[in-house]
Amino acid sequence: MAIRIFVTGGTFDKEYNELTGELFFRDTHLPEMLSLGRCRIPVKITTLMMIDSLTMSEQDRAVIARNCMKAKEKRIVITHGTDTMIETAAVIAKTVKDKTIALTGAMIPYTFGSSDGLFNLGSALAYVQVYNPGVYVIMNGRCFEWNNVRKDRRAGVF
Amino acid sequence: MAIRIFVTGGTFDKEYNELTGELFFRDTHLPEMLSLGRCRIPVKITTLMMIDSLTMSEQDRAVIARNCMKAKEKRIVITHGTDTMIETAAVIAKTVKDKTIALTGAMIPYTFGSSDGLFNLGSALAYVQVYNPGVYVIMNGRCFEWNNVRKDRRAGVF
Amino acid sequence: MAIRIFVTGGTFDKEYNELTGELFFRDTHLPEMLSLGRCRIPVKITTLMMIDSLTMSEQDRAVIARNCMKAKEKRIVITHGTDTMIETAAVIAKTVKDKTIALTGAMIPYTFGSSDGLFNLGSALAYVQVYNPGVYVIMNGRCFEWNNVRKDRRAGVF
Amino acid sequence: MAIRIFVTGGTFDKEYNELTGELFFRDTHLPEMLSLGRCRIPVKITTLMMIDSLTMSEQDRAVIARNCMKAKEKRIVITHGTDTMIETAAVIAKTVKDKTIALTGAMIPYTFGSSDGLFNLGSALAYVQVYNPGVYVIMNGRCFEWNNVRKDRRAGVF
Repeated sequence: MAIRIFVTGGTFDKEYNELTGELFFRDTHLPEMLSLGRCRIPVKITTLMMIDSLTMSEQDRAVIARNCMKAKEKRIVITHGTDTMIETAAVIAKTVKDKTIALTGAMIPYTFGSSDGLFNLGSALAYVQVYNPGVYVIMNGRCFEWNNVRKDRRAGVF
Repeated sequence: MAIRIFVTGGTFDKEYNELTGELFFRDTHLPEMLSLGRCRIPVKITTLMMIDSLTMSEQDRAVIARNCMKAKEKRIVITHGTDTMIETAAVIAKTVKDKTIALTGAMIPYTFGSSDGLFNLGSALAYVQVYNPGVYVIMNGRCFEWNNVRKDRRAGVF
Repeated sequence: MAIRIFVTGGTFDKEYNELTGELFFRDTHLPEMLSLGRCRIPVKITTLMMIDSLTMSEQDRAVIARNCMKAKEKRIVITHGTDTMIETAAVIAKTVKDKTIALTGAMIPYTFGSSDGLFNLGSALAYVQVYNPGVYVIMNGRCFEWNNVRKDRRAGVF
Repeated sequence: MAIRIFVTGGTFDKEYNELTGELFFRDTHLPEMLSLGRCRIPVKITTLMMIDSLTMSEQDRAVIARNCMKAKEKRIVITHGTDTMIETAAVIAKTVKDKTIALTGAMIPYTFGSSDGLFNLGSALAYVQVYNPGVYVIMNGRCFEWNNVRKDRRAGVF
C-alpha cells in the first residue's frame, strides 16, 4: 500500500523572492525531491498547508491530525517546520493510534542547494515502512518517539 | 554503538577530471555528505577501495566480506557501485551471519550536484539501524534482501 | 596592472542562518567565485563593508568613493546590493574622474546555488578592462553609464 | 542588433548518462544559462553541432566559418570545446573579416553544478559587444586575439 505524504510547509519548501529579498512559500518541492532520489516507493502527496511552523495554530494542528485519521494509508510522512514539529506530533499522537506517522523537516531550504532535506526524506520513508504504529520525529538520521525528543534550538539539532 | 561505513567507490564518489574530461576517483565524499545531512548517528568510516564496481574482482569482494566479519560493529553500511552490488551482497551473505549489512549506491555522482546518493544514504542508515541480521540492498527508497533483488540495467532501477 | 575589487555586501554575499531562518552576512564569496570561474586576471580583493544596500548611509558611500580615489589601480569592480547601486555610482562619479569603475551585483545569493552573480562577475571583469574612465553599472549582461540607468524594481532588472 | 550565439558542443553542454556512466550530449543548456544569468541582451541561439572538439573535423570547422559569414549579426559568440578552440578560431579568422567573433567554453560541464561556463559566458557576451572586428578566445576572464593564445593542457588554462 502507498505511503501518504502530507506537506505542511516549513524550511523544506521555502524559496527566495529575488524582488523583495525575502523567503516565501510557493509549491512544494516534494515531487522533485522524490524524483531526484529516484524513489520507487508508491507515495501519494497532499499539501495541507504551506506555512512556517512558528505561525502554526492549534486549528492547523487539528487539521493535520484529522487528515492523518481520515487517510486510508497506514503509513504517513509529514513534512513540517522544525520549530514546532514536536508540538504537532503530540497533537497527532492523542488523536491517531493505529498508524505509523513520521514527521520530518529540514534546516536549509531544498532550493538553496545544500539541504539536509533529501537525507531526512530518505530516512523518514525508510523508518515509516518499518516501525510499529506510533508518532515519530525523524531528524539527523535518527528516529525519536514523539514523547522522547526535544529540539536544541541553539545547536539546531534534535 | 556506532555504525561502520565501508567505502568501496562506485558512482557515489566519482569526480570529473577537467583536464582529461574523464571520470575518476579521489577521496570519498561520505564525511561531507553526512555533514550536509546533519547526520547525528555515530559512524566510523573506512575506505576499503575506490573502484568502479564493474572492475571489482572476487578478491576485492573477499576483502569486503572479511572486513565485515572483523568489524566490531553489528551494523554496517557499504557504499558500492550499483552494477555488481548484488554479487558482492551474495559473497558477504555467505560469510557473515550475525550482522545487519546494508549496501547502497547512487546513479549520479554526488559531485554533480543532483545525486540520489544523499537520499539513499539517509535510507540506508535508517534501515540498517532497524533490521535484523542479514544482507540488504538499499536503493530507490526500498530495502531488498540480497537474494530477492535484481538490477534492471535498462531502466537503472532495482 | 591588477584590478581592484571592493566588496560591500549585497545579495551576492548573503547566507542562510539555519538556526534563525534569516539571511545574514559572513565572509565574502568573491575568492571562491573567482576560483570557480577559473579567473586568471590578477585581482586584489578588499572588503569595505558587508551590508544590505538598503541600509547603506551617505557615510558608507563616502567610504566607498574615498577608497576608489585612494586605490592605486586604474580599474575597479565594486560588488554592491542592487537596490541603491545607482545612488552609490552617482556619489563615486562626482568624486573619481580618472578611473574605470564597474558596479555589479546579484538578484540571488551565490550560496543558494542558482546565482546570476557568477555571470555578472564575468561581465563586470570584462567591461572594466575595456572601457574608458567612468562609472558603470553592469547587470543582466549589459553595461550602463551611471547617469543613464534605473532599476525596475517590479521586474527586478536594470 | 542581437548577438548571434552558435553552439558547437564541448564540455559546456556535456551531461552524465546514469545508465552507462558515460558523458554525452543532448540539448544545449545555453538558454537555461542565459536565463540563470538574467541576461537581457537580445541573442539568437543556433546549434550547429553537438560534439567534443577533439573529434571536430576540418569540414566541421568550415561549417562554423560559413555560418559566421552568412549570419546577419555583426557580433557572434561561439561555444566550443577548449581542446581545439584555437584551431577553429584560426579557420574563422581566415574566412570572416568584418565581424567580432568570440569563442568561449568551459572546463566543467554546466550540469555538474560547478561550472566556469557561466562566468565565461558573462565575459564573452561583454567582450563581444565592445571589441572591434576580429576573432577572439575568451577564457579565464581574459580576452585573447586568436593568433596570440595557446592552451596549456597540463594546467587547463589559456
